[in-house]
This record gives sequence, structure tokens and C-alpha cells, in this order.
Amino acid sequence: MRLLAFPVGIIAVVWQALQATSSCNRYNPRPCCLHEAMAMNLPSLILKPQADRRLKLGHLWIYSNEVDTERSPLKNFAMGQQVVVTSNAGKPLGIALMNPNALICGRLVNRDPSHPLDKSLLVHRIKQALSLRELAFAEPYYRLIYGDSDLLPGLVVDRFGDYLVVQIASAGMEQVKDAIVEALVQVIKPAGVLLSNEHSARVLENLPEYTEVAYGEMPEVVALVENGVRFMAPVQGGQKTGWFYDHRVNRAQLQQYVAGKRVLDVFSYIGGWGVQAAVAGAQEVFCVDASTAATDAVLENASVNGVADKVAAIQGKAIDVLKQLIADQERFDVVVLDPPAFIKKRKDQKAGEAAYRHINELGMRLLGRDGLLVSASCSMHLAKDTLLDIVRASGRHLDRHVQIIGQGGQGPDHPIHPAIPETDYLKAVFARVYLA
Amino acid sequence: MRLLAFPVGIIAVVWQALQATSSCNRYNPRPCCLHEAMAMNLPSLILKPQADRRLKLGHLWIYSNEVDTERSPLKNFAMGQQVVVTSNAGKPLGIALMNPNALICGRLVNRDPSHPLDKSLLVHRIKQALSLRELAFAEPYYRLIYGDSDLLPGLVVDRFGDYLVVQIASAGMEQVKDAIVEALVQVIKPAGVLLSNEHSARVLENLPEYTEVAYGEMPEVVALVENGVRFMAPVQGGQKTGWFYDHRVNRAQLQQYVAGKRVLDVFSYIGGWGVQAAVAGAQEVFCVDASTAATDAVLENASVNGVADKVAAIQGKAIDVLKQLIADQERFDVVVLDPPAFIKKRKDQKAGEAAYRHINELGMRLLGRDGLLVSASCSMHLAKDTLLDIVRASGRHLDRHVQIIGQGGQGPDHPIHPAIPETDYLKAVFARVYLA
Repeated sequence: MRLLAFPVGIIAVVWQALQATSSCNRYNPRPCCLHEAMAMNLPSLILKPQADRRLKLGHLWIYSNEVDTERSPLKNFAMGQQVVVTSNAGKPLGIALMNPNALICGRLVNRDPSHPLDKSLLVHRIKQALSLRELAFAEPYYRLIYGDSDLLPGLVVDRFGDYLVVQIASAGMEQVKDAIVEALVQVIKPAGVLLSNEHSARVLENLPEYTEVAYGEMPEVVALVENGVRFMAPVQGGQKTGWFYDHRVNRAQLQQYVAGKRVLDVFSYIGGWGVQAAVAGAQEVFCVDASTAATDAVLENASVNGVADKVAAIQGKAIDVLKQLIADQERFDVVVLDPPAFIKKRKDQKAGEAAYRHINELGMRLLGRDGLLVSASCSMHLAKDTLLDIVRASGRHLDRHVQIIGQGGQGPDHPIHPAIPETDYLKAVFARVYLA
Repeated sequence: MRLLAFPVGIIAVVWQALQATSSCNRYNPRPCCLHEAMAMNLPSLILKPQADRRLKLGHLWIYSNEVDTERSPLKNFAMGQQVVVTSNAGKPLGIALMNPNALICGRLVNRDPSHPLDKSLLVHRIKQALSLRELAFAEPYYRLIYGDSDLLPGLVVDRFGDYLVVQIASAGMEQVKDAIVEALVQVIKPAGVLLSNEHSARVLENLPEYTEVAYGEMPEVVALVENGVRFMAPVQGGQKTGWFYDHRVNRAQLQQYVAGKRVLDVFSYIGGWGVQAAVAGAQEVFCVDASTAATDAVLENASVNGVADKVAAIQGKAIDVLKQLIADQERFDVVVLDPPAFIKKRKDQKAGEAAYRHINELGMRLLGRDGLLVSASCSMHLAKDTLLDIVRASGRHLDRHVQIIGQGGQGPDHPIHPAIPETDYLKAVFARVYLA
């Protein structure tokens, strides 16, 4: 066997060193790093005893009730300030971005306490994120940065070829927004960078909402390709960044089941599922959305792909449209339900689950004798098992046999941080439903 | 909109009828059915009060402690006998196959109590199962029948083109094995049917172990195609049915990450992951298995696909080989770990989880600075979240950042029954592991 060029000798030495020390010591910086951090005069955020546990398990968030506020009062910190986080015993754990007014008052950006978040670290992290996307995708259309999972908590960047749409959701990231734009320009060399900072997460952080072209030029609508299908997405005035790349792998999975089928795409937005189904050979596709702008865009995206004759758009509230279709005795081979998050907060749990149950049962009633229900949820608070159970219960109630033939999640451009369950939010259940 | 030919009027009437009755009444058979069941003289298996709840939620199993043995003593039933299951109040719930000596003493095969499991019902169920596989796959290589999920509890059939390999795991299915073979011959028209009845599940049911060509002729080794790659699988003398179709979608997912890479396939069996990686463009592939027959078959399967120059086989115990590779300072871009079930029973839980942790950490240590670990488990008792946590903990211990870029499960030919968690056993975690 050949050896890689990789300096394994060094790794072996480090490994032995790690083995020889206790696990909590492993986060000790080298003395020179401590020196550098102190030289930068970053203040310390001191945690309560045991409050370093979650960080050591891999999580990046610090809650305000975990801070030793006797020794490091939160009022001493400014919005967005960088700090060296230390255990109660004084061991440096890394650098965090502060928001002293928020429930999550600190977010770890580096476990090396010698290097704060600056343009050079941003360039490094963007390159690491880009390397994954270039491995996974042949074309430059993806979520380039996915917050915590790319070790950049509070930052999301979607890429549409030469255009980047940035969402900043924490005070710390807001503080370094110029460096973020500079780093993106250096690594990606985009034609335009948009700061699309109008979303609810900013309210929690007491950040102003605004949209701003931060670099170059940004069209209102940009082109993208997903699973070989072209779309025009409204990056300004649309939903979120203009497109939901997260369901890419699930839409790809749908393609294998739609040839010759009659498909209903509920909560279609601009046609991500429906237009891809039409291109994959569906006989007829009906896209339902409450927004006229969205249904107009569905038809445009169908045209762009030469499937306008197969795609119809129905503007209306999903529940109303589904009930009308049931009353009209319509039937479909495939029904896709991709609703907005019905459970945004814990307090919505019960009502939200009931809403999912209602919509799933309506969708299932529109299937023929042997059909496919694709039931999605982007609610982080809806457990996958609960969604499965909603599909099970709907099937029992209608006396149909249900087979789960696929369970999809986020694509590789929305990697999950295994210590942060909050990064794992997307579900798509593929359920065959038939009269046994 | 056009209406489908489907008789929606009838469905609407049935729907209204269902709505008008309470949920427990919905399982009442029509009077004529009751009459038919009684005409067949099937004995009744009477459940304890409340013990019908799981069946009503969709499950198919009856445990021996759920039976009202005062009124229907288990000793009155014969191995494999068919019965009408009734609630304690006497409502028929369907037809079950009995094994009075087993912990799971009954398995529901039909919710319609008028129709026992005979050749005609078997033909119906096989056609329903076939219809899903033909929708999902272009070629006839798949699990054709997956037990409970296809409403045929205790029966598994794998298809290799013209050859069928049957596994029977319950006394009730054993009782109708001739009808099973006849029904398979009628629907599939195979060249050969093998009863491959040597597996541990049969011991629980007190069934003899044997292998028998039940129809036509059966070669020792059969050909199959998975994700476009050809394999020769030992249907006689290999593991289980000779091939593991369950990981098909995960092996397909692997293909996108291996071009130009150095890949290690641990617990390779006959090369499912490794040979597919080589065909997908991996530069070098090393397959590790304890069985010489398996490593020989790896090399043969590599030759069949013209990638013999890229695939090497290492015969040896996985742990030993991994330790030796670490000692030799070898590094890989991709490491696949697809071990046999380390947790076969609940009592193995702790030791099994430790074994998964050990193997994952060894595998991770063999990755270079930025690599991909594919960590699989076929242990039903290992929760997906536990496997994720094992990967997380291994990454923390080695001070690497872990991103979960994919979470795979069973392919559509192993559909999950949403009321039977036991049907959902397979996990494949795709973890990018790098030095942040």
C-alpha cells in the first residue's frame, strides 16, 4: 500500500499526547495561544461549574443562565463582542460571540482561544464549507454556509451561481458583517452579495431588519439548477433567501416515482417539487399555493423547463383547496405536502401536531387506490417519529395500509452538527398508501 | 380537470359511513363475512380486554400474554393454525397465524376475517408487493416480500432476476409453504425457487432448519445488478439470502463522494460498498472481511465489473485489520463500516454500543485531514440517535469536527410498517470528519 503525503508521524505524536491526558485537559491551549489571546485583550466569559459540559460534548451555545455572573456580569459585555470562554476553574474553552441581551448569550466560533473571528478565520471556514459543497455538487447552486454546522453560528449563505444571499442571525455575526462580505468575495469571487436580513431570528437578538446589496449587483430574480431542473428564484421579495435548497435530495427521490403520474404539490411555493416532477415525466401536476406571486412563478418555472402544458397552478389556502378537491372527487397518484413550519415554538406543539395530522389526512384522502404521499415537515420541534405516527394514524383512520418507502432529511449542504439537534430539522416521509 | 376512472362515488359513500361510526366499529366485518368465517370453522383467539389496542393502531403481532387463555387456551391451538382474532367483547379483528409455543403467538395476516391466508390471498399480496418494486426499480433485483410491511408476517423473498430465495420465519407461513411457492410461481414465473430456511428466527418458532430447492433449478451463485453494478451472490452457502439489498440507496449515496478517493470497506462481505465505489471512480479500494469466501468473492465481483486493478481484499478480523492499518500509519479518504448486528438482543445493548463506539473510533482514526466516515448499523436495537451520538463522541475524542451530510435507511424494497418499529432497523450515517 502507498502512504499518503499526510504527515502521519505528527498525528501519531498528538494522538499519544491526547491519550496521555484527561479529556478536560485536551481543550487546554498551548501556552503561546493563551499568550496571544491575552495579548488581544479579549475579556473572559466565565461559566458556572459544570456549565462547560455541553461545549465539551460539541455544542456551541452558551445560555445566559450558565454564566458565572458574579465574576463576569453580562452587563459588562457589548452586543457582538468577542470573548474568551473559560470554565469555572479558568480553563479557556474557545472564543465566543456575545449577545448579553439574548437567551443564547454566547456562540462558540473557535475552540482555539488564540484566534478570534476575523477575516482570516472567515476565509478558512468558508473554504472548508466550500470544499464539502464542491465534493457533493457538480454545479454552484447550494447552501454554502449553514450556521453552527459549518462552525459559523448565526450565518447562513445561499449560493446561486455568481450570486450570494447572506442571512445574519446573531449580534456577533452582525458585528463582523463587513469581514464576512470581504471573505466571501475573496473565496467565491461573486458578482453580487445580498444581505437578506429580514427574518424572525433577528428579533430575538434585537437586531434591525434590512435588505442591502453589500457587494456588486444583485438582480431581483436569480437562476439556479436543482436535480437538473432550472428555476428562477426571487431573492428579493421571496421567502427566506428565495429558494429552499434543503429538500434537494427528497425532490430527487420523488423523481423516481412520478413517471406518467398525476401529481398534487401542496404548499408549492415556486414549484420546487411540482416542476421537478413534471420534468421527471409526470403526466399532470397541480401546484397549490396561497401566494399569487408563487403560483405565477410556478408557471414561469414550468415554462423555463418546457413543461408548461403539464403544470397547472391553483392559488388558494391549502386546506380550502384540498377540501374542494375532495368535494370534487378528484384523485391523484402522488400528493406532496411541504407545509411551512406549523410548530415554530414549543408552545405551538399540540396545535401544530393537530395541523399536521389534519393536512396529512386530507392529502391521503386525495390518493387513489394505490398512491404515494410525500409528507414533509421543516418544524424542528416535530420529531420524525411523530410525523411517521401522524401518517400511520391517518392511514388507520382511512383504513388504508401504509408502507414507508423512504425517509429523507436535509441534503449535504445542510449538514447536521451531531451535538446540536437544532441543526437537524427537515423530514420527508415517502408513504405508499393502498387498500390492502 | 379530468376525473380519473376510479369509482370515487363509492369511496365517498364508504368515507361517510366510516365517519358516521366510532373507530372501533370500523373493524366490524360485514355480516356476510362473519358468516363466511364461521362457515370455514376457524377457531377464535380471544384477546384480553384492551389487548386489541395495538392491532387497532396497525400492528400485526399478538403476544401470548395478551390472550384470554381462560376462554381460548393456547394449548388448544396447533402450530401454524389459522384463527379468527376477536376482541374480548367478541368483535372479529381479522385472521392470524398461530404459534401457541412462541412469545409472539399470533400474527395478523388479514383484517378481513372472512378470508384466511390461502393461495389466492398470497397471489394478491405478492402482486401488491411486486407493484411497489416495479415502480421503484427498473430491473428485477430486489427484496420482493418484506414480511410484516407487505402484510405477510414471517415471509421474506429476495429476487435475483429469474431466481427467488425464500425465508420463512413463522410456523404459520411454514404451514402454507406449498401455497407460497405456487403463488410465487404464478405471479413471477421464476426459473427457480429456493427455500433458505436456516436462520435464528426459526429457532424461536421451534421450526427445523433446512435448505431446499422447491421449484425449478437453483444455481449456487446468482447474478444481480445494484445501482448499475453487477454482482455474483452465493445464494447457497452465503450469508442470509446471499445478498443485502437493504443498503442499496446508501451505496448509491456513497457513489457521489468517491471519485478519485482511497476507500476502505470494512465488513465488506462480497464487496457491495467497495466494488460499487470502485465502479463510481474511486482510485483504490480495500475490502476487509473475516471470511476467505467473502474476500474471494470481492475479487471476483471486482473482475466482473472491470475494476480488479483498483480493488484489494484483506482477509482478517475487522478490529485486528483496523489496528494494523493504524499502526502502519495508513490513511483513507473514505471509510465504510457496515458491521453485522452487534446488538441482537436487548441484553447485548451495553456491550453492543461499546463495540459500535470502538469500531467507529478506529475507523475515524484512519481518515485523513478531511474524510468521510460511513457508519452503518443493522441492529434494530441501536437507535439512530445513539449511532449519531457514537459518531459525535468519536469525533470529540479525536478533536475532529463532524458534519452529518446524510442519514440513510432502508431502500423502498424494505418498506417500513409505521405501526411496527421492528421493521425499521437499518441506519447509515454519512459523516464528514475534519480538523477544523
